[in-house]
Amino acid sequence: MKNLVYSFSEAFGLSKDLLGGKGFGLVQMQNMGLPVPPGFIITTEACREYYENNKAISENLKNQILSQILNLEKITNKKLYRKNEKSDTVPLFLSARSGAKVSMPGMMDTILNIGITDESHKFLMVNTADLQFANSVYLRFLQMFADVYAGINKDDFCKAFENSNSFEEKIKKAKEYYKKKSGKEFPEDPYEQLFLAIEAVFKSFNNERAKYYRKINNIPEDSGTAVTIQMMVFGNYKENSGTGVAFTRNPSNGEKKFFGEYLINAQGEDVVAGIRTPSSIENLKNEMPDVYKQFEDSANKLENHFSDMQDIEFTIEKGKLYILQTRSAKRSPEAAVKIALDLAKEGKISEQESLNYVSDSQIQGLLHSKFNLEALKNAKIICKGLPASPGAAVGKAVFDSKKAQKYHENNEKIILIRQETSPEDIESMAISEGVLTVHGGMTSHAAIVARGMGKCCVSGCEDILINNNSFICNKNKININEGDYISIDGTSGNVYLGKIELENLKFSDNFLKFLKVAKKYGKIKVMANADNYQSVKNAVLVGADGIGLCRTEHMFFEKDRINFMREMIISQTLEERQKALEKLFEFQKKDFLNMFIESNGIPVTIRLLDPPLHEFLPKNNQEFEKLAQDLKISKKYIEDIAKNLYEFNPMMGHRGCRLLISYPEIAEMQVKAIISAAIEASKKINKLITPEIMVPLVGDVNEIKFLKKIIINIADKIIKENNFKINYKIGTMIEVPRAAFMADKIASEVDFFSFGTNDLTQMTFGFSRDDAQKFLKKYYENNIYNFDPFMNIDITGVGELIKIAIKLGRQANKNLKIGVCGEHAGDSKSIEFFKTLDIDYVSCSPFRVPGAILAASR
Amino acid sequence: MKNLVYSFSEAFGLSKDLLGGKGFGLVQMQNMGLPVPPGFIITTEACREYYENNKAISENLKNQILSQILNLEKITNKKLYRKNEKSDTVPLFLSARSGAKVSMPGMMDTILNIGITDESHKFLMVNTADLQFANSVYLRFLQMFADVYAGINKDDFCKAFENSNSFEEKIKKAKEYYKKKSGKEFPEDPYEQLFLAIEAVFKSFNNERAKYYRKINNIPEDSGTAVTIQMMVFGNYKENSGTGVAFTRNPSNGEKKFFGEYLINAQGEDVVAGIRTPSSIENLKNEMPDVYKQFEDSANKLENHFSDMQDIEFTIEKGKLYILQTRSAKRSPEAAVKIALDLAKEGKISEQESLNYVSDSQIQGLLHSKFNLEALKNAKIICKGLPASPGAAVGKAVFDSKKAQKYHENNEKIILIRQETSPEDIESMAISEGVLTVHGGMTSHAAIVARGMGKCCVSGCEDILINNNSFICNKNKININEGDYISIDGTSGNVYLGKIELENLKFSDNFLKFLKVAKKYGKIKVMANADNYQSVKNAVLVGADGIGLCRTEHMFFEKDRINFMREMIISQTLEERQKALEKLFEFQKKDFLNMFIESNGIPVTIRLLDPPLHEFLPKNNQEFEKLAQDLKISKKYIEDIAKNLYEFNPMMGHRGCRLLISYPEIAEMQVKAIISAAIEASKKINKLITPEIMVPLVGDVNEIKFLKKIIINIADKIIKENNFKINYKIGTMIEVPRAAFMADKIASEVDFFSFGTNDLTQMTFGFSRDDAQKFLKKYYENNIYNFDPFMNIDITGVGELIKIAIKLGRQANKNLKIGVCGEHAGDSKSIEFFKTLDIDYVSCSPFRVPGAILAASR
Repeated sequence: MKNLVYSFSEAFGLSKDLLGGKGFGLVQMQNMGLPVPPGFIITTEACREYYENNKAISENLKNQILSQILNLEKITNKKLYRKNEKSDTVPLFLSARSGAKVSMPGMMDTILNIGITDESHKFLMVNTADLQFANSVYLRFLQMFADVYAGINKDDFCKAFENSNSFEEKIKKAKEYYKKKSGKEFPEDPYEQLFLAIEAVFKSFNNERAKYYRKINNIPEDSGTAVTIQMMVFGNYKENSGTGVAFTRNPSNGEKKFFGEYLINAQGEDVVAGIRTPSSIENLKNEMPDVYKQFEDSANKLENHFSDMQDIEFTIEKGKLYILQTRSAKRSPEAAVKIALDLAKEGKISEQESLNYVSDSQIQGLLHSKFNLEALKNAKIICKGLPASPGAAVGKAVFDSKKAQKYHENNEKIILIRQETSPEDIESMAISEGVLTVHGGMTSHAAIVARGMGKCCVSGCEDILINNNSFICNKNKININEGDYISIDGTSGNVYLGKIELENLKFSDNFLKFLKVAKKYGKIKVMANADNYQSVKNAVLVGADGIGLCRTEHMFFEKDRINFMREMIISQTLEERQKALEKLFEFQKKDFLNMFIESNGIPVTIRLLDPPLHEFLPKNNQEFEKLAQDLKISKKYIEDIAKNLYEFNPMMGHRGCRLLISYPEIAEMQVKAIISAAIEASKKINKLITPEIMVPLVGDVNEIKFLKKIIINIADKIIKENNFKINYKIGTMIEVPRAAFMADKIASEVDFFSFGTNDLTQMTFGFSRDDAQKFLKKYYENNIYNFDPFMNIDITGVGELIKIAIKLGRQANKNLKIGVCGEHAGDSKSIEFFKTLDIDYVSCSPFRVPGAILAASR
Repeated sequence: MKNLVYSFSEAFGLSKDLLGGKGFGLVQMQNMGLPVPPGFIITTEACREYYENNKAISENLKNQILSQILNLEKITNKKLYRKNEKSDTVPLFLSARSGAKVSMPGMMDTILNIGITDESHKFLMVNTADLQFANSVYLRFLQMFADVYAGINKDDFCKAFENSNSFEEKIKKAKEYYKKKSGKEFPEDPYEQLFLAIEAVFKSFNNERAKYYRKINNIPEDSGTAVTIQMMVFGNYKENSGTGVAFTRNPSNGEKKFFGEYLINAQGEDVVAGIRTPSSIENLKNEMPDVYKQFEDSANKLENHFSDMQDIEFTIEKGKLYILQTRSAKRSPEAAVKIALDLAKEGKISEQESLNYVSDSQIQGLLHSKFNLEALKNAKIICKGLPASPGAAVGKAVFDSKKAQKYHENNEKIILIRQETSPEDIESMAISEGVLTVHGGMTSHAAIVARGMGKCCVSGCEDILINNNSFICNKNKININEGDYISIDGTSGNVYLGKIELENLKFSDNFLKFLKVAKKYGKIKVMANADNYQSVKNAVLVGADGIGLCRTEHMFFEKDRINFMREMIISQTLEERQKALEKLFEFQKKDFLNMFIESNGIPVTIRLLDPPLHEFLPKNNQEFEKLAQDLKISKKYIEDIAKNLYEFNPMMGHRGCRLLISYPEIAEMQVKAIISAAIEASKKINKLITPEIMVPLVGDVNEIKFLKKIIINIADKIIKENNFKINYKIGTMIEVPRAAFMADKIASEVDFFSFGTNDLTQMTFGFSRDDAQKFLKKYYENNIYNFDPFMNIDITGVGELIKIAIKLGRQANKNLKIGVCGEHAGDSKSIEFFKTLDIDYVSCSPFRVPGAILAASR
């Protein structure tokens, strides 16, 4: 018979996969001599067996559990009551807790106080002389069991017995309601309670919110959960008992100082659920100095043992400390960076190891916006809560998860406002800009989840009163209705009226320091996509190795030049077009000049015009009229041109190099602007700029041959005219599948390749990103796709094309520089794949550069 | 020094590449003892040298020519006059004719009567006592030289001297006009005339019409032309002289009987140009029995020697026959088929060789339409001409090549009407439905070119009078203006008023016999695309091995069902949708039933619904209103749905298997209809039908897995319900690049692959066929592409993907059937490529099946 159950001592040396995170931690702690309540672990393998066995507990598993119970009774000198237990037997109460290999905080279920019956309740009443405690133990079990095992709504359940005259009547009514709702008698036998509780925990692995959590966190579906059975210790047993949660460092800013909260005379999840607002762990030092000392020792031991900041749950029963759980603590992005640096400095981990201490989403979180300081001066504060997860957010007030979904579908930004959040709110939190709760502390559900998501959160804002779809602030009587804009600041805890302008990104010193460490270990270079000097500045700041993609068309959309662009488009002769292009030239040159100056000599890759011309034309009647007026030509004339430029499938239309081949004068103007600007910038910063000119959408070597000739002609002419020698490079994007198969011929003509994986993905799959969302949802639901190919690179198809292109390209041109500049260039999962290829760099938006640097370094 | 010039005797054994087609034929003829005027050949190599030598005749070449002239003077006992030649010297006159390796009839230039000067003219006047002849020789040379060498417009040139009082004045004025236009003196020295004429012929290789001809016929640009220099023989020398053209068989119907025309007292190109209407070759038998006998012997010898029907030019000078040229004759598609069969039957060629005697374009020509006989009963005949190239055509009357282009650009069908056509008209002939000429016989330029193009032509319709952009019929005074519809019948020579309905294709017995021969040698199978039972019938008739693609969506567009389709689309619930689908089911089943019955047991492959749903919705306001009325719902409601279905890039949108995954009930309905129909048809024709169900646009194995389950469920259910066992196959189209890379996994799930090369080409190149035409023109102009990837398969990219898919597919599934069903499946050049791959079949439109059978057999 397979061993599926282990006592904490037996389990030492077994893997986290088998024991689950929670169990694994307990085993480690017991082995370290820390005070954990005795217990045993039913392994994840037992969970998988349970599912394979048609959701039934096998005889083998049952027997092993029973044998562990006997053992536990021996150790604790308590007993799980049977019918007619002797009245002086000390009753054993148990907790059954979930614990998967990867932590899914709050997603799965727990049942406490297993073993309470009329008999053991009587024992508690008699022996503790604390009637409230005894009753609370009983009622809590009834509630939890009804909720977790039978899925009975908590509020309804409580209502069913709230108007009772006696405790006995309460119990009676509760059990009757349970029977009515579930169709079954409430289990009076502690053993039955235990086995049903174990099943409930197994089943909770597959509840909707757990599935969703696994999906957004890429956790495998078939891993299963372990169940940890432990002797209950009671924090709600009089005043010298309590329960708390503490972090070994500050999870908001990473400061090396305990950070936590506790509640006296409270049980279980009271702290986490945020129903009562708790005291700071600092108070414990004064209130129970011995306990605090014990806790401090344990916490330090744990952090050293696990080489990471810990999130520790503890209970104090009659003045004795028990550690219930330890795990690596969730932390804010800022904290993660500081802790990674500090742990390395403290010598607890190596510098290279420290790179694994900051996650991708934390990096993203670090790049969250802040409010513009000027705008903040005039902002009206509605109220103030706890700064639960840093960042700033602006959106419409929404009070309901379902409505949040509706707003989201209409592309509206929202702030989710809740009394407190529960695991059911995860989906709506994910689509909100930020979260505001009335109750709950810094370690409440809302706070933990928001920090994990790198999302702004203000919690415990007790000053507001929610009434259906609006709230009113007690102090100043400001009223906010659903759909009203508010702004929240998770760093200060402030809640503001209306929309407040968000600031451009700023990076902390710690963050930049951390990025420098990461760059030391980088396996490929990381460049940034940037279309203006401000972005170049940001890119240089975060350590980008260059600008891998400047989309010149972005420069044409700006207000002061769009009309010249349109003038160019509606030109009917080469002369007219060149006249309009000359006006655009001045703008382009200035833009490039500023970019080159900011670049300070790192490579800058400029892509020639890519989108189809119709994208620049007016979109509605009013705009057509205005343009006609501005250009002093008939509206009909412009409309005819627009009609002529119309395309059935613009994605596969007259764009990229095709456009430049049709209108070489556009390429000529752009090259002239690039080279002139590079020469001027070289003189100004006294460093030779080597611009890299990139031709988009090449699918045939003759396309690049044709354009290369034009580029060289103009570039060399400008260089000669200026009598100032600079070098320049010519490259091409590889973004249509055919280019991969012609990569050898193309490589012989160019200095570099840059894979445009967005387009390449579209062409390879044969669907456009804009249109695909309509049907991809169904694909995910039916597990046809298990990833979004526009987020993570598709290794099967797109990856294979990239490999072919690299192989052919390198064969033909040993000096070829190869990069990736699609959306995937900033995705760490995709970077994992790119690292296995022979490429030189990735280039992504500045916002994603830090994450890419980190991914490239691992 | 390289030998660049050969006398006919010296040239025997040299290649056609070197001698050009015309020269090669003359050398063969001289060697066979046939009467050819003596002469020599300047090789194609000399032409290439001329171009490499900056368009100058090298000393070496000049000397070789001069030496050949000496030789020729010796043989003929005539002399090329020099200044002050003795008046009793018999003057040698020469022709300089072009002749490339591949015949380009009428595309390049010829100059006759070289050697005429005032002195030699005097000799002719005196010695022939035929003033008109002597003058005509002189004037013709002046005209031809001015036209060909100096590019002076013929009509203008003639006008310059038409009002002269004497022949001397004519000559004087002509030479003055020549000098005025060309800036040079007219060459009075026969040697100068000769060398300039040779240069003119060299240059004519690169005139615009020759270039265009080479382009549309895929003839290499660098091959060059040879120049054949021959002693002139004069068909215009009194009444017992003449000139003619004859074919060894009938070029219209292939009958084994001389077919040709001659003109008495005519020179050079008079017959071909169609200016005078000539007599039939049969007349020659009576008029000059000896000459006819000589001709008959020569013609038979030539056909036997070249194993092909010959097109022979001859001249009779003073009762003596000269053969000027022989070549494989252009022939109508019908004739080509009959001649191929006959030559094989006569044992002149093998059966397999006969397959090369019918070209792709001839096969296309055979598939030209005929008029509907019923419609013809009420048709009004305007006039009647010669049945110069068979077929029927309907279009708007256009009288001008440039206008023809305009109409064509507006997608209007046209009939080109000309006095007579000349090589300048080739482009406009190519874009016309048919050609009507006033002058010219069955061997006129219009007739020959139209037959080559497989295009309908009525020539020599002398009864009409063209007046700018209209014509009037002399007999009945019917007036036709530009833009009026007319219909012409190239088989009968009739010209009809207005549009006459065209008949479905009919195939001659010879044609079907020829296809049977071809099928014997077929290397891959040829299937047909067919969407209705009529097409299935045609497909079976021409010997298709099956139906490789039935596009089910075509069935939904028909009037009686489009509204049910729309009802289905605007359904908001599954129930509504299923109700509408049930109505469609009846139609589908009936369609499939008829197709299966017609198929008579050959495989029928049915593709499930492919296009995005919005394609079925109304296109304009009126249609929306009508639909709203018909379905009794608000117009706004339907418009909202249409808006919702809008796609940015429908080609890359919600279509193919994506649609079926979103709405499995559509697939279910179609499978139900296919299987029910197959069972019913099996019973009816007493043969087991095995339908092949094809899923479009698959790019991931999970897509086909998902749909396969649905297909099998329904199919097996229907089979069980009917208690009638049939087999069915499930396959997939490979038309997105990603499918190629997943082909192994996909192949494990299916019975067959069908490459959809249209979509695969679009995705691989990254452009849509509809939009690409805008920029591809520039690509052809700049030689960026030298073929249209939607016509001929792209071997570099698309071909490579196909190879990958075949390799992976075959590895995973040994029994996999593989075919191609894109546009390329009917293109013989593409089939050449497909034959090199391990595929089982191609499937194209029935119209293209015969061509594909032929291509597959070669």
